[in-house]
Order: sequence, then C-alpha cells, then structure tokens
Amino acid sequence: MTETLNNSAVILARRPEGLPTPEDFSVVTQPLTPRAEGKIRCETLFLSLDPYIRSVIAGNHLGHGIDPGKVVPGEVVARVIESDDTDWPVDTLVRCQGGWQQFSDHPSEALARVPTELSRPSLTLSVLGMPGLTAWAGMVDLAKVGPGDVVVIPAAVGGVGAMAAQLARRAGATTIAITSGPEKRRIALETLGYDHCIDRIDDDLGTALERAAPDGVSVYFDLVGDPTLTTVAQRLAIGGRVVLCGLIKDYNGDHKTTGPHPGLWITKRATVSGLVVYDYESQRQAFEAEFVPLMEAGELTANEEIHNGLEAAPEAFCRLMRGHNNGKVVISLAD
Amino acid sequence: MTETLNNSAVILARRPEGLPTPEDFSVVTQPLTPRAEGKIRCETLFLSLDPYIRSVIAGNHLGHGIDPGKVVPGEVVARVIESDDTDWPVDTLVRCQGGWQQFSDHPSEALARVPTELSRPSLTLSVLGMPGLTAWAGMVDLAKVGPGDVVVIPAAVGGVGAMAAQLARRAGATTIAITSGPEKRRIALETLGYDHCIDRIDDDLGTALERAAPDGVSVYFDLVGDPTLTTVAQRLAIGGRVVLCGLIKDYNGDHKTTGPHPGLWITKRATVSGLVVYDYESQRQAFEAEFVPLMEAGELTANEEIHNGLEAAPEAFCRLMRGHNNGKVVISLAD
Repeated sequence: MTETLNNSAVILARRPEGLPTPEDFSVVTQPLTPRAEGKIRCETLFLSLDPYIRSVIAGNHLGHGIDPGKVVPGEVVARVIESDDTDWPVDTLVRCQGGWQQFSDHPSEALARVPTELSRPSLTLSVLGMPGLTAWAGMVDLAKVGPGDVVVIPAAVGGVGAMAAQLARRAGATTIAITSGPEKRRIALETLGYDHCIDRIDDDLGTALERAAPDGVSVYFDLVGDPTLTTVAQRLAIGGRVVLCGLIKDYNGDHKTTGPHPGLWITKRATVSGLVVYDYESQRQAFEAEFVPLMEAGELTANEEIHNGLEAAPEAFCRLMRGHNNGKVVISLAD
Repeated sequence: MTETLNNSAVILARRPEGLPTPEDFSVVTQPLTPRAEGKIRCETLFLSLDPYIRSVIAGNHLGHGIDPGKVVPGEVVARVIESDDTDWPVDTLVRCQGGWQQFSDHPSEALARVPTELSRPSLTLSVLGMPGLTAWAGMVDLAKVGPGDVVVIPAAVGGVGAMAAQLARRAGATTIAITSGPEKRRIALETLGYDHCIDRIDDDLGTALERAAPDGVSVYFDLVGDPTLTTVAQRLAIGGRVVLCGLIKDYNGDHKTTGPHPGLWITKRATVSGLVVYDYESQRQAFEAEFVPLMEAGELTANEEIHNGLEAAPEAFCRLMRGHNNGKVVISLAD
C-alpha cells in the first residue's frame, strides 16, 4: 500500500477556437482515487504531444473526442508503481495511453513494455510510439518505398516526418524535406540526413520541387493537407503514390483543406491511400521487429524537443500546432 | 489498284464552348490521297463515339488534342480494302484508330484483328475496344473486385459502365447503377443486370445509396467527377477503393470538378487510383484472353446505340455529351 497521493493533470478548459492557446487548458491537482482491482497504477515519466490531439480536443477525431473538464489524452512512458500482476511488477517501464497527468491506472493489456536497452526511455514515444508506427505504415506498408524513389515529407522534422525520412533513406530513396526556418533546415539536413530541404515560407514550393525532383516526386507523405498537397501532386511522377495521413491546418479548425482536382490523380496515374495509424496496432509486431533492433543499435535519430514539467505541456502543444517545434515534442515528468 | 475514291470525313469546325453542338463539326468530302508504301487502306464499317473525345477536340486530352480543320479521331471497325501485306489481306476485319471518316491508311502494327465468331463486328468497339479495356483495367486490375463487394457505377449504361457492371457481377459483387430516366433504368436493371438503380435526377443520391448500400460502398468506378464523387465517397465503406477514370462534366469545359476533402479519404482508409486506359495496351493480351471467349459465348451484353451514316456522328456525339445516350454509341457506315 502507498500513502494517499495527489494527481496533477492538465484538463481541457474549453474547446479552442482556431489555433489553441495555453488558456484553453488548466493544470489541476486532485487526490488520487483508489486503484480498482486488477488495474496497474503507473507514474508518467514522459508524455508525447502530437498534432492529432488537436482534433481530439475539438471533439471530432475520427468520430470521437473529449469534452472540456476531461484530462487531455496522450501516449506516455511510465513506471509501474502499484501492481498485483507478477508479469508487471513495480518499476517496470511501460508505454501506455496515460494522458496529460502524473498518474494513471490501466489493465495489463493496455500496457506495452519499453525495451530496456534504450539510451533513454523517452525514445519509445517517437520511435516505437504513434509517430514511428505511422511512419512505418505510410512508408513501408502503403507507399512501399524503395531504391530510386523520390520522397517528399512536409512537417519534416516533426515526430512522424523524422521517422518517415529515415525509413525512406534506409530503403534507398532520395528524401526532400519541407520545413521552415534555418534551425529546422539544419536539423533536416544535418541531424536527419535529408538530401534536400525546401523552406515552405522562403522558397516557392513548386519551383524548388522542380529543382530538387526534376523527374517528379514518386512518394508524397501528406501530413498537412492543402495547399501543399496540390502543389506537390502537380509535380508527382507518373505512377506516384500519395499517403494521406494528416491535416494539421484543418485540425486548428480555421482552415478547410480542399482536395486536388481528381483529374490530377488521373493524369499522374496516382495511387492515393488514406492512413489511420490505429488500424496498424495489429501489425505492431512486424513493426517492432524492424524498429527495436535499429533503435537499440542507435541507428534511428529521434530528434526530440523535450520540455520539463507537466505545466509546460499547454504552451509546448500550442507551439507544436503553430509548427514552431524543432522535433518530436516530449514533456518530461521525470525528476 | 482501285479507282480514285472520295473520302467522307467529319472535321472539327471550331472548338466547342461548353456542351458541343452539331455546328462545331463539318462533314467534308475530299479525294483520297495515294496510299503510302507499306500502309494498309481500310474502309470504316463502325465508328465508336466516346466521351474522352470531348477533351481531345478541346485540345487538352492528357497533353494532346486536335485543332480545328482536322478529322475527329476515334476507334473504328474497318475492312481492309488495299494491302500488300499477306498477313492483312483484303477483306480482313480490323479494329484501328480510323477516325470519323470513311477511309484511313495504317501500318500493320496499328491494326488489331476482329474475332470472326462475333454475331456482329461492331461489338468489338464496346467489348474489345477502349470501353472494355477501361472496364477491365478499373474493375480487375485496380479495384480487384470480388465477392461481397458493393460496386457503384455512374454513367451506368454507357460503354464503360455497361462493361464494368458485367465484370463486377461476374466477380460476385453487388452492382448499383447511377443513371437517369425510365429507359436507362430499364436497360440497367433488365439488360445489364444491375442489382439496384439510382436515378441521378429524381432520387437523392445520398439517401438512395444508404438504402442500396447500407454497409457502405466498397468500390466506386468514377466516370463523372463531382458532385457525384464526393457524395459516393461519403458513403464509402472502410477500406473502399475508388478508381478515378473520367470527368465527363469537365470535358465539356463548363464545369470544374473539385476534389473531395482529403480527410474523407483518410477517414475511410480509401485507396484512390487514377486510370488512363492507354497504359493498359501492354496488358491487352490478358484482357482479350478473358474477354474474347466471353464475348464469343454471348455472355457479355454490349448494349449498343447504333446510328446510321457518318453524317449522324456530330448529333450523336452531342447527345452522348449530354448523357442522353442509352448505351455505347456506335455509328454504322456499313451498307
């Protein structure tokens, strides 16, 4: 038995209008309710912040969402602190949907083990978490990226983009980043090893793509929607593949992406696939078989932007939704 | 040697604005120029009229087109009337790109043989011609239609639609026609064997789809573009396949289709493929291996709308572009 604990949590104060602001969230402290029988109590060490949470707090993420007053959801790395399950003893490191809070209780089937060989457990949130699985689903399963491919990735240094780029490079493809500002350009080219980097603000995207991909783009991993989608699609090679995965601008609710003209897909003989990462949980074993050894060998760069303390989460999330992050955004709750 | 012949032809008089009118075309008669060495002279028996010709005469069909003053192109069934090639003797029945004219000259590699067992050679233009190959490419190669699929086909009794529906039925799918008027409804249900028929004018498409496909549409063969595309896409089953093949409204130049919101493709985990039938010429052998026996056994209904005389072509084409045809439009030049 442990002493009575308080639980710090970030709750949704109100639904954001457009770009979220820190005032849309509240940090609250409440006594922990007793742990239900069979549940395993976990203490969050690292919390993953991801753009899709914007549509969850808008209440319309693939038909579900949360209401004001509720703890904001999110994937975490946590440490088991109370458990009756001998398979999950105290001090086990786990990955789970802990949310933006200090403590959370889970059935054992909702927990995943964190590989013990990691240099730091937070890497689990980028490489083995939602971003890594999304990148794997898009690049390997849907686009089937291979040698000779020319792959364009917007939000290029973010959680999903950084993983997708490394997968594409390892498969022998040429990689083109779309990002903004000198710091992200440096990360894209030097840290993540992109072959080219286009500044979405300073460069004319169409012209820059013609220079970087003179024979056309064979794979586009769309994380942002229009107008980037249509501009890249116009420079697609014949038979190009487009993976539709994210609509970061639409998530803010102040922008309604329209789709490219269907004639464009016909002319390019394109294959366009919609990707929802939840569908890939059943393939997690194949994904981990590929990723865990690479991660343990230090061959994947996670490119994290770490902020300290749960109270930093609202501001860090707002920066993420403005595209001001320089990598996978992680909140550290570890001492 | 034959006597000097005149050649009747339909030329493009001017580029149509919006829906074409018969005045956009002229019927002319000119003396035949001498046959070049190695060419095979053919006399047209049947001429195929197809919607894609609208964008050819607009000058923008996949980067090519024709200018006013030129003979309108088109696929024909013809009879060899002059030949030095013993493989293609006089009286051989061939399929070729003869255009809207009485006589045309071709190298042997531009000719395809018409199966001799056909009840009438015009069937070649629907079943073995561009419409049949398009339907095969869309249903078999791209959508991989199979048992349990729910397939929606607009322009349902036209050349491509009629073939696609029969392929889908043979593969064990449920077929839903979108068409207009009682005559086409009768053809769709009685002649072509669709399971359901939705009237695009009298019915509310969304409501009718929910009734005919309560579990969603698994395959949509798009021949028309928006707004039908978006309405059907909204009722797509998870994992649905959409083959983008035609944009009949856009061909008329008075309508600019917009694409469905990319979020729709994501939510539906859709696979959207652009189809250009010219890419499938190299697979013609596989296609014919499947279609010729069926056609010879009378198992495919061509559903032709035959008009007599080359001079009937402009008016018949204009009806086609208004969607007033009741089947695959063929002009007979045979006596």
